[in-house]
Amino acid sequence: MIIVKLGGSVITDKDTPETVDEASLTQAARALAAVDDDLIVVHGGGSFGHHFASEYDVSRTQGTEEYEGVVAIHDAMARLNGEVLDALHAEDVPAVPVHPFSAGFRNTVADLVFPTGQVRTLLREGFVPVLHGDVVGHEGRGATILSGDELVVELAERLDAERVGLCSAVPGVYDENDEVVERIRAFGEVAGALGESESTDVTGGMAAKVEELLALDVPATIFDLDGLDAFVREERVGTRIG
Amino acid sequence: MIIVKLGGSVITDKDTPETVDEASLTQAARALAAVDDDLIVVHGGGSFGHHFASEYDVSRTQGTEEYEGVVAIHDAMARLNGEVLDALHAEDVPAVPVHPFSAGFRNTVADLVFPTGQVRTLLREGFVPVLHGDVVGHEGRGATILSGDELVVELAERLDAERVGLCSAVPGVYDENDEVVERIRAFGEVAGALGESESTDVTGGMAAKVEELLALDVPATIFDLDGLDAFVREERVGTRIG
Repeated sequence: MIIVKLGGSVITDKDTPETVDEASLTQAARALAAVDDDLIVVHGGGSFGHHFASEYDVSRTQGTEEYEGVVAIHDAMARLNGEVLDALHAEDVPAVPVHPFSAGFRNTVADLVFPTGQVRTLLREGFVPVLHGDVVGHEGRGATILSGDELVVELAERLDAERVGLCSAVPGVYDENDEVVERIRAFGEVAGALGESESTDVTGGMAAKVEELLALDVPATIFDLDGLDAFVREERVGTRIG
Repeated sequence: MIIVKLGGSVITDKDTPETVDEASLTQAARALAAVDDDLIVVHGGGSFGHHFASEYDVSRTQGTEEYEGVVAIHDAMARLNGEVLDALHAEDVPAVPVHPFSAGFRNTVADLVFPTGQVRTLLREGFVPVLHGDVVGHEGRGATILSGDELVVELAERLDAERVGLCSAVPGVYDENDEVVERIRAFGEVAGALGESESTDVTGGMAAKVEELLALDVPATIFDLDGLDAFVREERVGTRIG
């Protein structure tokens, strides 16, 4: 089983609220239609989720108790999820939606609890579960953000993924000379070079991505949309993490 | 904590595809806004889910492996869920959506596995989770129907509900003289009087409802929309089951 994360900045215009990048989403769906293994797709928020998260001042640690914020963020992400499903269905990928807010939560020590039996069953039955960054209930804090990257790590560990691919806005992790790093084995190797994400991103940008993937036992690769075909064909591409 | 199921035939026009009964839904939302306890709302499918379930020939035991059927049924139910949320929000009920397809599944012996930690957390944080009849992944059968009634029983048992109310199209369970039975302690008492549901209902109608509620340790009551206020105020209404 492989997990592919489609970055929000890949499939949306991240600077214009609720705008899908149709050409990029179609390209991604076509590449994913060639996957032979069991497949889980996770997508980020891009211009759908992040603006509402900022508006309601919600992050992975800062919660909201207002249902208006919870519903605004979740509904926006569900609309983007619908667009991703439509694009995958157009390529005959048997994609079905799994909304993290409906399944998981954070407990009193802020650990994510995310049951995966439903995802495993859908995989076994031949479906392609499509999950996304979302809000989740958080004991003592109302609801906080669950990032797509965090979800990828959780699913990869719990469901024994063979490999994980993160399709990002950049072709890999850059070093201080703006060259793509082939492999990162420890965060210190690239800490100096990892800047902030350019657009509003409550989920932490590239630094958080690398840190989370380093904690994972499964091989993970960061590449851009043009690298997705190569990742699907198991060719060397982008930056290998871990 | 109390659980209220809004029957699909109460909040939709069951014979016209995808038609909400706005007046009834508003009346239900107003009644629920008066609930002081923690509250879970579950709604049925009515004219949203049942027609698609028939079209794709899916029931609680007959599955589909076609993603088109899964998505058609689930999306229709999610649209109705959105309407229910809107009606509750208009009455300042902090309602949030929990889609069963995203959370649960049936295992190889057809038992429902439905984690409830997310629902418990949302309740503790002051939200009103709103769930609904849905499709769920089913090991070996693709996906089958999870009825709202089945979900009510599962949630009541797992989350220790104090009482359960089923707001139905009829004021209670009728006996053979068309009088509402005050209390049913065993299925045999009413088996002769329980006919078939009038409209297409893949989830079994009144007979299935009574059987499921009899298996429950929590007090359950069946009443109609005009009885919902009385149920909320803990007054005697409709038919008590068990």
